[in-house]
Amino acid sequence: MRLRKKPGVREAMANYPKLVPQDAEQYKGKWREFFGNNNPIHVELGTGKGNFITTLAEQNPHINYFGVELHEEVLIKAVKKAEEKGLANIAFLWINIRELESYFAPAEVDRFYLNFSDPWPKKRHAKRRLTHNDFLKQYKKLLKAEGCIQLKTDNEGLFEYSLNRFAEELFLLKEITFDLHNSEYAEGNIMTEYEAKFVQKGMKIFRCIAAHPAQLAANFVENE
Amino acid sequence: MRLRKKPGVREAMANYPKLVPQDAEQYKGKWREFFGNNNPIHVELGTGKGNFITTLAEQNPHINYFGVELHEEVLIKAVKKAEEKGLANIAFLWINIRELESYFAPAEVDRFYLNFSDPWPKKRHAKRRLTHNDFLKQYKKLLKAEGCIQLKTDNEGLFEYSLNRFAEELFLLKEITFDLHNSEYAEGNIMTEYEAKFVQKGMKIFRCIAAHPAQLAANFVENE
Repeated sequence: MRLRKKPGVREAMANYPKLVPQDAEQYKGKWREFFGNNNPIHVELGTGKGNFITTLAEQNPHINYFGVELHEEVLIKAVKKAEEKGLANIAFLWINIRELESYFAPAEVDRFYLNFSDPWPKKRHAKRRLTHNDFLKQYKKLLKAEGCIQLKTDNEGLFEYSLNRFAEELFLLKEITFDLHNSEYAEGNIMTEYEAKFVQKGMKIFRCIAAHPAQLAANFVENE
Repeated sequence: MRLRKKPGVREAMANYPKLVPQDAEQYKGKWREFFGNNNPIHVELGTGKGNFITTLAEQNPHINYFGVELHEEVLIKAVKKAEEKGLANIAFLWINIRELESYFAPAEVDRFYLNFSDPWPKKRHAKRRLTHNDFLKQYKKLLKAEGCIQLKTDNEGLFEYSLNRFAEELFLLKEITFDLHNSEYAEGNIMTEYEAKFVQKGMKIFRCIAAHPAQLAANFVENE
């Protein structure tokens, strides 16, 4: 998606200090203080216009959500959605996903969502894919042992790539589906803006869950 | 595939005692005696007409191959292929795959091949799929710790199903591709009879490798 730079977006963001904490790094490891509770933390990486994460936040008041997004032009829309819905259990991080470790402490996150991430189809751009091993190692560190990553994409190449990388990093794969909307996992699925468009066109959505390697280790001991 | 019963096939099989050992169960755990060497053992489950396994046997004289097939009408063709090629490093088991443990001892097999197995698309037939958990547990037992299963299929549903079951049984997934013939793994790929037809029609072939869970455990220790 080509983004047009709108003047004043940066300034607009400052109007929502409760939704876009300006000095977010200080909360690393103590987001419970920011939210005033000890609820689980679910983080969407690449939130875009925020339909997915704000809908989840509305439906699940006992989970704290984060929308992480680099592009302020779309992030401001997500922020405004959260404001309109009057949500108190969501915050947005206007940062590069590479810097995630400056904002979350090890084992602080219960779940990551990766929704329709840029597939970066050229091989020389593989390092930019959000399921590149470097990123997965980062998520692994920040996830609780009981945590997981949920990935959705319409892009077969990215899905194939991601399954291989998850397996390499010893995530425990679960609920792999090549056609989410015609699968047993369709119920309760919250759609992103992209997803709604794709589904309307009859395109298939790939989805999987990658549980933290600690769960694999636990399973392994049980199995043997 | 609908199989026509040809009279005399059973009798014909008896003409190839070196290729179709009549009292195969006696060799369980000591196939090295049958072959007269200690070479690795690779087993194709559902060999059909045998193009795949006889080609491999021709190319790799230092590996011992098995073609396992229940249907004698196709198996006899595979046997004749091996005979024509004068292969000494191959044997055929005219058995039901459910009985595999009567023919191989634990950790006797280095590799299993599953090529274009019947997808059994109906849910109530799931237990017949050769990647059903019951089968995978069997293969796991018979495989060496360094061993693996290689699966190829044109059937997306079976592939999706199989990835989930492999992950459940804690196999270490590798080299997952949704389009084998346009992937980096195309080189050196030996085609089955089905595969050649599918590829000619431009159909995509799914492929993955599932390494024995012991390899996963080893990786896990290394990683942590």
